[in-house]
Amino acid sequence: MPDLFLRACRREPVERTPVWIMRQAGRYLPEYRALRERHDFLTCCRTPELACEITLQPVRRLGVDAAILFSDILLPLPGMGVEVAFDPAPRIDAPVRSGREVDALRVPDAREATPEVLEAVRLLRRELEGKVPLIGFAGAPFTLAAYLVEGGGSSRWSRLKTLLFSEPATAHRLLAKCAETIAPFLSEQVRAGAQAAMLFDTWAGILSPADYAAFALPYARRVFDAVGAAAAESGSPVPRIYYAADAGGYLEKVRGIGAEVIGLDWRLGLDEARRRLGDGFALQGNLDPCALLAPPERVSERVRELLASAPEVGHVFNLGHGILPETPPEHAERLVETVRALSSRPLASRSCP
Amino acid sequence: MPDLFLRACRREPVERTPVWIMRQAGRYLPEYRALRERHDFLTCCRTPELACEITLQPVRRLGVDAAILFSDILLPLPGMGVEVAFDPAPRIDAPVRSGREVDALRVPDAREATPEVLEAVRLLRRELEGKVPLIGFAGAPFTLAAYLVEGGGSSRWSRLKTLLFSEPATAHRLLAKCAETIAPFLSEQVRAGAQAAMLFDTWAGILSPADYAAFALPYARRVFDAVGAAAAESGSPVPRIYYAADAGGYLEKVRGIGAEVIGLDWRLGLDEARRRLGDGFALQGNLDPCALLAPPERVSERVRELLASAPEVGHVFNLGHGILPETPPEHAERLVETVRALSSRPLASRSCP
Repeated sequence: MPDLFLRACRREPVERTPVWIMRQAGRYLPEYRALRERHDFLTCCRTPELACEITLQPVRRLGVDAAILFSDILLPLPGMGVEVAFDPAPRIDAPVRSGREVDALRVPDAREATPEVLEAVRLLRRELEGKVPLIGFAGAPFTLAAYLVEGGGSSRWSRLKTLLFSEPATAHRLLAKCAETIAPFLSEQVRAGAQAAMLFDTWAGILSPADYAAFALPYARRVFDAVGAAAAESGSPVPRIYYAADAGGYLEKVRGIGAEVIGLDWRLGLDEARRRLGDGFALQGNLDPCALLAPPERVSERVRELLASAPEVGHVFNLGHGILPETPPEHAERLVETVRALSSRPLASRSCP
Repeated sequence: MPDLFLRACRREPVERTPVWIMRQAGRYLPEYRALRERHDFLTCCRTPELACEITLQPVRRLGVDAAILFSDILLPLPGMGVEVAFDPAPRIDAPVRSGREVDALRVPDAREATPEVLEAVRLLRRELEGKVPLIGFAGAPFTLAAYLVEGGGSSRWSRLKTLLFSEPATAHRLLAKCAETIAPFLSEQVRAGAQAAMLFDTWAGILSPADYAAFALPYARRVFDAVGAAAAESGSPVPRIYYAADAGGYLEKVRGIGAEVIGLDWRLGLDEARRRLGDGFALQGNLDPCALLAPPERVSERVRELLASAPEVGHVFNLGHGILPETPPEHAERLVETVRALSSRPLASRSCP
């Protein structure tokens, strides 16, 4: 069923719930670790043949219903003039905190700055031979800006918030530059053949709803507007997926963001999210990744519970966050098998909203 | 106005919004740091005269409307048989992860295990001379269990969740022991004179709503039930305050927890929280602590915005989390001054629900 995932994104009838896993290509897979013994992380991201091979590994092993380009949300940074290292957490030695540093940022042409990403997309479309759709992705402008200001991950994000709260005009200039960089970066992935486009707003949940509306929402919307225009050119609908982390406080605001699919972490119930968002969106998620650390029979139980709370139409099964590196691969296999087995239903019996 | 805070907790008319600050006694204050040069953290917690002096420092400097006992949510652990170090983050070298380790935990008598906490409460009531009420507190059973299993703070809490998801029966035995320890620990504070009783469920927000209902809610309710009984004996109403961190996904469930006041972090709007909880609760919070890192005029702006979204009756102004150690004390002073100035209103003009 090569288009199962895309049909669920469009809230069309499906014969079973499609499933893929955030970070499905990565460290929990021995075949990925074997490759990484010979190539560092950035080399894997920036070499189309390697990115392609890594992207395909979980498609082969797990039989997931979508492939997602092996890449990283921080890949556009060097094009903006900012170097980033991975050891393995991202580290930016020259963070961007002053108005002068913001003004010095470049807005790169994605075709010149990250041609290897677009080449990987083209290569993958050929290799996948239409078996499952390919998802392209980027970091949402707010999340990208969070890393740029903080210089890496953080528990409090106090440097970032000091900028937002002390110098909002500077923060808005930074966010605008991030949006101007990400919009073509993701749109070009669509032009190169990505069949869905996902924005990860991993750190949006650190904001109050009012700050979310000011600093995160409008910039993600700019990116989705550009992606929508690129998709319209291509003539085929390209679902736009917004990963809204820790969205319990701001979920209603996401309605206006320009995405057809809302990805959620486990902190929100799917039934509650559906109620708060209304019927107009497909939902993606949202099993706690730690559930895969429990024995396989417990994994199956939790999948069953989650499916019971999910809408019958317009649900893409996924974890609520990236799969943890210590996950036994056979638990991920069990997850996919269980979703397939438990969600199968004859097409005629479903109600179409 | 010695009872302003208590009246707001009871949703009675108030002439202005009461304000206090989570971790108001602590590292951002030079007078606290001066004391800490001579005494380590645990000594400060366990010496009634020191705990009393530190508790009073912000009352003198800021003029807050409530004092909160200087203590730590992990103080009951040694009585359970578990040693904890602070350097400065809490560290438990022998975490509790197996059924055998859970069964080995003791349930201490609070009067024997932590008499110094109760002595500090009695001393403070005398020193405060009724000027402002004294809040006693404890960690909620789930949050206490989180530290016991994980051995300290964590970003993913994967060891804790592995226990919850793999061996739920063992997890429930652990949570029951935590509740049996905390219920008398907090009730005895009330008997010693604490005029409000607060439970901090700092890590409740890492759970899905269903897991929250299973592992956090019932155990916090047991504590509040015991506190309610202790308060009934005393004959004066003792508001019970539940600090529900990152509650966007589980807020409605909190209605049944047995608290009159719900403390919130900044990730939920107060207006939205009021709508979702209904009128039966006072709300405490919820300015982002990073707001105090901005210049004072920005602090005032944010206080104004927050007051505009707050209910007129039944609001206690606070931060949404503990004040950050790097906060300039004069910004905390500005916060308190601004709340006082902007929330003043003639009693007659308010509507009483």
